[in-house]
This record gives sequence, structure tokens and C-alpha cells, in this order.
Amino acid sequence: MKFSLTVIGSGSGTPLPNRYSSAQVLNIHERFILIDCGEGAQINLRRFGINFNRIETILISHLHGDHFFGLPGLLNTFNQLGRTKDLNIIAHKKLKNILDVLFNATANEIKYKIIFHPVEDLSIEDSLAFNKYTISCFPLKHRIPTIGFLIKEIESRKKLSKSFINEYTPNISEIKSILNDNPFFDNSGEIVPSDKIFIPPYKPRSFAYISDSIFDLSLVDYIKNVDLLYHEATYSKIMKKLATQTMHSTTIDAATIALKANVGKLLIGHYSSRYRDTTSLLSEAKEIFPNTDAVFDGFKIDIPIDR
Amino acid sequence: MKFSLTVIGSGSGTPLPNRYSSAQVLNIHERFILIDCGEGAQINLRRFGINFNRIETILISHLHGDHFFGLPGLLNTFNQLGRTKDLNIIAHKKLKNILDVLFNATANEIKYKIIFHPVEDLSIEDSLAFNKYTISCFPLKHRIPTIGFLIKEIESRKKLSKSFINEYTPNISEIKSILNDNPFFDNSGEIVPSDKIFIPPYKPRSFAYISDSIFDLSLVDYIKNVDLLYHEATYSKIMKKLATQTMHSTTIDAATIALKANVGKLLIGHYSSRYRDTTSLLSEAKEIFPNTDAVFDGFKIDIPIDR
Repeated sequence: MKFSLTVIGSGSGTPLPNRYSSAQVLNIHERFILIDCGEGAQINLRRFGINFNRIETILISHLHGDHFFGLPGLLNTFNQLGRTKDLNIIAHKKLKNILDVLFNATANEIKYKIIFHPVEDLSIEDSLAFNKYTISCFPLKHRIPTIGFLIKEIESRKKLSKSFINEYTPNISEIKSILNDNPFFDNSGEIVPSDKIFIPPYKPRSFAYISDSIFDLSLVDYIKNVDLLYHEATYSKIMKKLATQTMHSTTIDAATIALKANVGKLLIGHYSSRYRDTTSLLSEAKEIFPNTDAVFDGFKIDIPIDR
Repeated sequence: MKFSLTVIGSGSGTPLPNRYSSAQVLNIHERFILIDCGEGAQINLRRFGINFNRIETILISHLHGDHFFGLPGLLNTFNQLGRTKDLNIIAHKKLKNILDVLFNATANEIKYKIIFHPVEDLSIEDSLAFNKYTISCFPLKHRIPTIGFLIKEIESRKKLSKSFINEYTPNISEIKSILNDNPFFDNSGEIVPSDKIFIPPYKPRSFAYISDSIFDLSLVDYIKNVDLLYHEATYSKIMKKLATQTMHSTTIDAATIALKANVGKLLIGHYSSRYRDTTSLLSEAKEIFPNTDAVFDGFKIDIPIDR
């Protein structure tokens, strides 16, 4: 039962041949969530072997080009691949208008259903529940309306352990009864304890995505204790002034948020194109929060089950 | 004095990692014309070493995504690179509305001037004259309004030959007089013949771009005798029926147009993504028009001066 993230584009405003603009895919039990969709995302999705048909939800953090200019092409390509599956899009309401104008001009009729969730209709307390995960939105402070996303795995149903099945060979009606929380008796009439019947439950995994944002301690409350946090780090710590002016974060900002929120692991990205090498950015973040990785196009991380 | 073409994207509807959607750059005396701008064009422009600031004109053949979804990102990047130079865009009038909606949403103010030439305002007989070239448009038959482009080099001013300067060492007022078509006399009072004074003139070079189009013999009149013709060849000859249905061309269609128009050289491209190898497409075209090349991302051709 996968919970893994693949970085499709790790760059910022100006895409480079080896660093496309923002896009990431979160795989939860083989259901894929595409988070942001910068120009060329569909090319890198293909390059990194992502099955297009498994993408069931697309989240767009905000309407700066480096976060959504790849979306129209991807929606077109879904069409050309014969997609019939519904697609959820969570984004600012203006995106719908943009897509309408574009698809009107191209005269391409999208043949699958797009379920558009305008972010303004979602309150912070709400979360959208999908089959295997929930998504909550929270506000980021950037130059235009921008949202962060908290994605949580939904705990799987209880599963019978193999050793219990081998030892007691329950029949179908007994299994149904067990799954309805009834006790199961062994041959001597004793109740079999539930930790002998079930695989122990595991802690549902979680991922938070913060891009783009000025340094903002109020974010900590939304993302407390997540297993994995992606926080933009457009600039080195020595560019703090420019970061503040452009409403972006430095390495230190990202790492400080990770530390205060007690996250499991921090990923940084969205590097300014002035940094061709990210070694020093990673070192800066690690000084504050050691369990940090600097992502790149094609970077992949699995969050294993913790029982 | 360059006249060269670089193919930025040689693919069609679905971009692939090694075959982006349509885009080409024509270099005329180091002034660049970008023709179509599929998704990711800015990434390949960078990969192939094209100087962004030399792009002074962008032509968009039609508003299918694989011909313009890379434009918004490129215009943004021009901004970020600090462009101040005017940019000409020749395209269907709907493109202006699309760009307005997009840049309104992104709240990015374009800081250089875009001179938009809506195609409907250009008649076939007209051509737009720029410093070193003229551009004429002609109608293509495709599923939505689509235009072909004919780009002609403007003949350079007459140039004095080095041997004449060395032999007669004319002073500045004499040079001015010669360039104003006055005769020049040698020491014995004889008129020096003009073929001794000037570098012989050369034939202005020309390029025609046809993408996307159903097979259409009426195009021949617009592109007669061009040095270089790019004609889409989405399909192999055995897919003629599908080509007609989708209003595209086969290899044979492209080569037949080249032959009838007596062009110098034919380039084919815009291959359906079903063709990972284009060898057989090239062979088919060459059967009809031997001087054909099958382009790929990064393909480059120079048209030398012919005096």
C-alpha cells in the first residue's frame, strides 16, 4: 500500500532543460494526485513512467504560470489517450474560466468529466474525502491567492492476519461476523483476542505541500506532525530580503517551519534558476532541520507503513 | 548573412520526451522568427542555444494546443529575463483574448510591448515587412482557422567589392555618390562598370511553413519556387483515410505539394506519436520528392547565399 511522492518539476519561474517548473505526483495506493502542473509536466510524467490514467485528482496551488501552464496540454492529452474516468481539479475559481476560454478556442471537446472544486468553496475545517485519502486546503501568503494542501491517507479497513486464517480456517459467514466486530470463539469456546485475528493497524500517512509562500509561522498549525512536508525554498538564506520582497521563502524559512511543525521529513525545491547546483541550499536547510532532502526532477521518496 | 532554420519541436498533439510539439526558429541575419510555440518550446529553445532576445516575431499557425500552449510561458520568461524589445505576434485574433485572460489571472504585467497582428486583418496580397524579411499569410484547410506562412528575405543593399575599394580607394563622398547610382570614373576618365564596383547581388531566400493542413493543391500557388518548404506529414501514406478525416497530410501529400510547387527542399514533421521511428516516413516522401529531410528536435538547416 504505497504512499510515495515523485517530483516531476523542481524549478520555479523559468523552466530549465533539467529542471521543469513545479509539479509532483503523490501515489496513494496506486491512486495518483498531481500537485501543480507547470509547463512540460506531461513530458516529464512520461519520462518518469507515470501512468496518466491513474491521475484522479489535480491540485493547483495558485495561478502563476509556473504552477499551471502545463495543465491545458495535459487535459488535451488525457483526451487523446481516450480517458473516460472522471478527473477532480481543486484550484482557484479563475482556472475554470481560463480552461473554458482555451478549450473554446481550440474547439477540442473534453470527453471525460472534470469535477471542478473551486477552492473558495472549501473552508479550512472541511476536507474533501476521496476513496483512499482526504485533502484539506489552507491559505498561503503569496502575491496572489495561493493555497497549501494537506493530504492524509484514509486508514484501510481491518484485515485478517494470515496466521489466524491458517490456524482457524473461518468460513465466509464467520469472516463477515468478525468484520462486523463480533467475537470469534475457538473450538474450546474461548474468545480469540483481536490482536491474534487482525493485522495490526498502521498510522495513516500524510503529506503537506507549501508552494509558494513567504515565511509564515501560522502555517505550523495546519501541518503539525505530517510525515512528509514539501516547502518551497526559492532562495538561499543570504537572499532573505529578495525572498520577502517576492513573497517567497529561503532554505532557513522552510527548515524552521519543518522544525516547529515537528514533521517527519522535509523536502525543499522551487529553486530560483540562479542556483544550478543545490548543494549549498541543502546544507543551509540541514543546519536547522537535518532530515531534509533537496528534490530534483525525477526525485522519488516512499513513506513506508509504520505499524 | 544567415538564413537558417532550427526545429524546436517536431511532434504533433502528444509531446514526447524527445519530440516536443510544433515550434521552429528561422534565423534571418540574426533576427529570429519563432513559428508556432508548442508546450515546452522555451525549454528546447534553451537546450538548442537560441538567444531569447533575438526573437522579434512569433507566428502562430492556429489555436490547437500543440501549436501555442508554450507561448504563455515563453512570454513570461521574456519578462523575467528583463526584455524591453518589442515583440510582434501574428496569430488568430482569439489568441489575444486568451493571453489577456491568462495574464489577468497570473497578475503578471508584461513589461515589453507586444504588437499583435490579428491574421484576419491581413489579406493574402498584403505582406508584413520587417527589417530583413517580409511575411505573408495564406489560408490552410484544417479543422479550425489555420494559416500558412511565406517568409522572404529582403534583399540587402548593394555592397562595394573589396577589390574595387583596394584598386580605386574611393573617398566617402565618392562612395555616397556610387551608392546613389551615379557613375564612377577611373583616372583615365572611363566609367568603371558596375560589376567591377559591386558584389554581385544574390537571390533573396524564402521559407514556407504549412502546418496543419489537409492535402490541398491550391497551396501550390502561394509557395511556388521557395527555397525551403516545411509541410506537415502527420501520417504514413497507408493512413490516407485517417489523414483526410482529421484534416492532416500524409508523406505523399507533403511531397506532392513540394513537387508541384518546385521548391528547393522539403522538410517533413508533425509526426503522429505512433511513429517512434521516422525512417519509413522519409522514404515514402523521397519516392515523390527526393530532396526531403525528416526533421527532429534540434534539426538545423542553412540555406546558403546563391549569387
